[in-house]
Amino acid sequence: MKLSEIAAHINAELIGDGATEIHSIAALEQAGPGQLSFLSNAKYLQEFESTRAAAVIVPKGVESDRLTLLRSKDSYYAFAQAMVLLHGHRRHPHVGIHPRANVDPTATIGENTVIYPGVFVGPRARIGRDCILYPNAVIYDECVLGDRVIIHAGTVIGVDGFGYATHAGVHHKIPQAGNVTIGDDVEIGANCTIARGALVNTVIGAGTKIDGLGMIGHGATIGPGCMIVAQVGIAGSTTVGKYVTMGGQVAITGHLTIGDGATLAGRSAVMTDIEPKATVMGMPAMPVSHARRVYVAFSRLPELVDRVKRLERNAEPPSDGDDKD
Amino acid sequence: MKLSEIAAHINAELIGDGATEIHSIAALEQAGPGQLSFLSNAKYLQEFESTRAAAVIVPKGVESDRLTLLRSKDSYYAFAQAMVLLHGHRRHPHVGIHPRANVDPTATIGENTVIYPGVFVGPRARIGRDCILYPNAVIYDECVLGDRVIIHAGTVIGVDGFGYATHAGVHHKIPQAGNVTIGDDVEIGANCTIARGALVNTVIGAGTKIDGLGMIGHGATIGPGCMIVAQVGIAGSTTVGKYVTMGGQVAITGHLTIGDGATLAGRSAVMTDIEPKATVMGMPAMPVSHARRVYVAFSRLPELVDRVKRLERNAEPPSDGDDKD
Amino acid sequence: MKLSEIAAHINAELIGDGATEIHSIAALEQAGPGQLSFLSNAKYLQEFESTRAAAVIVPKGVESDRLTLLRSKDSYYAFAQAMVLLHGHRRHPHVGIHPRANVDPTATIGENTVIYPGVFVGPRARIGRDCILYPNAVIYDECVLGDRVIIHAGTVIGVDGFGYATHAGVHHKIPQAGNVTIGDDVEIGANCTIARGALVNTVIGAGTKIDGLGMIGHGATIGPGCMIVAQVGIAGSTTVGKYVTMGGQVAITGHLTIGDGATLAGRSAVMTDIEPKATVMGMPAMPVSHARRVYVAFSRLPELVDRVKRLERNAEPPSDGDDKD
Repeated sequence: MKLSEIAAHINAELIGDGATEIHSIAALEQAGPGQLSFLSNAKYLQEFESTRAAAVIVPKGVESDRLTLLRSKDSYYAFAQAMVLLHGHRRHPHVGIHPRANVDPTATIGENTVIYPGVFVGPRARIGRDCILYPNAVIYDECVLGDRVIIHAGTVIGVDGFGYATHAGVHHKIPQAGNVTIGDDVEIGANCTIARGALVNTVIGAGTKIDGLGMIGHGATIGPGCMIVAQVGIAGSTTVGKYVTMGGQVAITGHLTIGDGATLAGRSAVMTDIEPKATVMGMPAMPVSHARRVYVAFSRLPELVDRVKRLERNAEPPSDGDDKD
Repeated sequence: MKLSEIAAHINAELIGDGATEIHSIAALEQAGPGQLSFLSNAKYLQEFESTRAAAVIVPKGVESDRLTLLRSKDSYYAFAQAMVLLHGHRRHPHVGIHPRANVDPTATIGENTVIYPGVFVGPRARIGRDCILYPNAVIYDECVLGDRVIIHAGTVIGVDGFGYATHAGVHHKIPQAGNVTIGDDVEIGANCTIARGALVNTVIGAGTKIDGLGMIGHGATIGPGCMIVAQVGIAGSTTVGKYVTMGGQVAITGHLTIGDGATLAGRSAVMTDIEPKATVMGMPAMPVSHARRVYVAFSRLPELVDRVKRLERNAEPPSDGDDKD
Repeated sequence: MKLSEIAAHINAELIGDGATEIHSIAALEQAGPGQLSFLSNAKYLQEFESTRAAAVIVPKGVESDRLTLLRSKDSYYAFAQAMVLLHGHRRHPHVGIHPRANVDPTATIGENTVIYPGVFVGPRARIGRDCILYPNAVIYDECVLGDRVIIHAGTVIGVDGFGYATHAGVHHKIPQAGNVTIGDDVEIGANCTIARGALVNTVIGAGTKIDGLGMIGHGATIGPGCMIVAQVGIAGSTTVGKYVTMGGQVAITGHLTIGDGATLAGRSAVMTDIEPKATVMGMPAMPVSHARRVYVAFSRLPELVDRVKRLERNAEPPSDGDDKD
């Protein structure tokens, strides 16, 4: 494909020769003739200077004496479009429901949905159209997936919420009568666990993306449009607003409300409601500007202790022993 | 079912009309005529005031001018009983061992145990009666499950413990000759990993409940009667006593002893033995009353630094420059 | 097997009667006649004093009046060798590819590799020889495993990296065109998730061992020779050097470099590059000697606040009210 065609497709400004033929995309260090590359991060400027790529997608403002550039206002999106154009999404080895998937006869599966072997879809579950369920994903009974939902391998949707009533030393299991309802265009990474609610449904709003090993508790409501990085744990009955971003290993306790557009930095431990658009970090999670000062002071604590010791020494009325030192 | 019958069954005091017919249970906000609801948490008093439920299960002391109440000393247990009465536990789409489960011919399976498709039960494993093994659960060779054990989808029991002897730059695998032994009435959530011991068995005591994505290391002993929330990691050879409660993402290092009845708050990092009945939190885990003071001081660290600075400034002998300020 | 033969095989010094017959290995507390045991940790000296084992493998320097000893410079390695000698590694219930494994016809599988039921191996994946893929492990398309690789149950190799370009409120999926390439002698525990790269491959170097529930992000490079304990999360594009050791629940953010031979203590939150051979701990991760002082000061914060309060009180000019106290 000609570079000029790619530039037109991804809506980028072409600076250089548009007739160059491009066959694939590669990282700056690996790219060679016939390959397009991408400057993703200021950390990689050195690789940019020395790349052998035929052309490079760059953000506005980046220049080069020697390289052909595709300059874009939203260079990451331009890169994504080029990836789809040149590499495309995965082609599945089969269409429809693989004979070794285990789909209950009372479940319904939408048109054009691909179900890999080892997948389980329980009674009365409803799966939309154009979905992909990767190998060994498990959808418990009654759960509902919208259209174009992608569930990666080993992920479990609709497992019983962790609900017990402890009475006379016995933990009595509470039937979990809700389901999990997943909106359109949701993608969930590998080996996640999304629990069903006891009374209300657990809801993952449209367009939300959840990375691997995430845990969503029973009766939580997430999204739409959230981005949730790996190993996050969200406890039961918490409500996460629209377009919330979470870094890896974040924990949120139960019965909280996380406002729309909030950002929770990686490893945050969230134990209170979070305001819309707030950015928090730390354990416990604090507004980010305050948290930064807290963590700077934290890492200098031994010095602070020494300073207090010095103040104490100076404040003491001189004793005989001290006089002699 | 008549409300009076439900009240009798769950041993609750009926305040209002016992003749009302109830068909199901719903959350306060969603409940309507013919539905029973439940006040679980003081956070939901507003929903309680406005609910359209036919009746509400409440703890002792709660009153209402307008609602029919089922009042109980242990209202959460009363709710659990009502859920079992009205909704019941899951009805499985098949009985016994699904033809697509992979059960080794040398394994033994108790009566009335349900094994879903994709489950693997290895050589010489022994599964008790009335168990449920959900899709794609994996039981390695020699492991033993008691009666009424529930293993959710994707959970792996008896994987090799993480044991290597490093010699001359090579990590040599140590055969893990122990098994995992699970007591009666244990329930383990989805995608957990319970490692077998090298020499001794890993033991999960009767009635213990473990939420999703938990990791139990080789040779650990847990319970009986523990409640372990999601994403907990317990390292090898640690002994957890009876009726210990752990919040989500707790970590416990190896070779420790956690006393009976202890409570480990979510995200605690436990690096020392814990006394029976102690409640700890934090990283590192500290007794909770102390930890609360530590974390309050922590979140005010920038202010403390400023106070120390001020003390230092005041303690300084006045210099010419300072005099002029 | 005679003790003298075992001593010769594991290259240990025999102190006592070499003619004793040994049939197996057991922990100090459980061991009886005919059993060899092992002193692994100074914590277990009491069990060592009272063991009924026929003989005990011990490090240099350990003596006993009553026990037959196998003394070794590297006693843990000696124990590992004895375990292999007396117990051996798992014998698999079948050879080759189980008929209920799902191996794409375009995948290649090396000689003598054991593939359990429920395993999925995608298009064009290449698996080396003498590998073991335990039940329900999933290898996505194009991934490459070396020889003698062990993948435990439920682990997912090659899931799409968490890559989206957000444009006009929509998270657009970026095709992940790289693969996961795993070196020889790697072992990965149960229910891990190793994501494929977008442009470059995710690489797990030879001899690296990863415990259960670990998450490796897209485009990361690990090892060779690393030891990574359970529930670790390593974000995309991070490079981990040779022989790096990580405790449980460590988190590393993206685009970092962890030097050869570094040690990251359990629960460390690593947000900067780490020097070769450095040992770090804490959140944020700090050099261990500094971190220890920080955490000691942290756990004494309430006391420090009191000391500052006292200094402030003493520094105040005496007021009328104070005079009267």
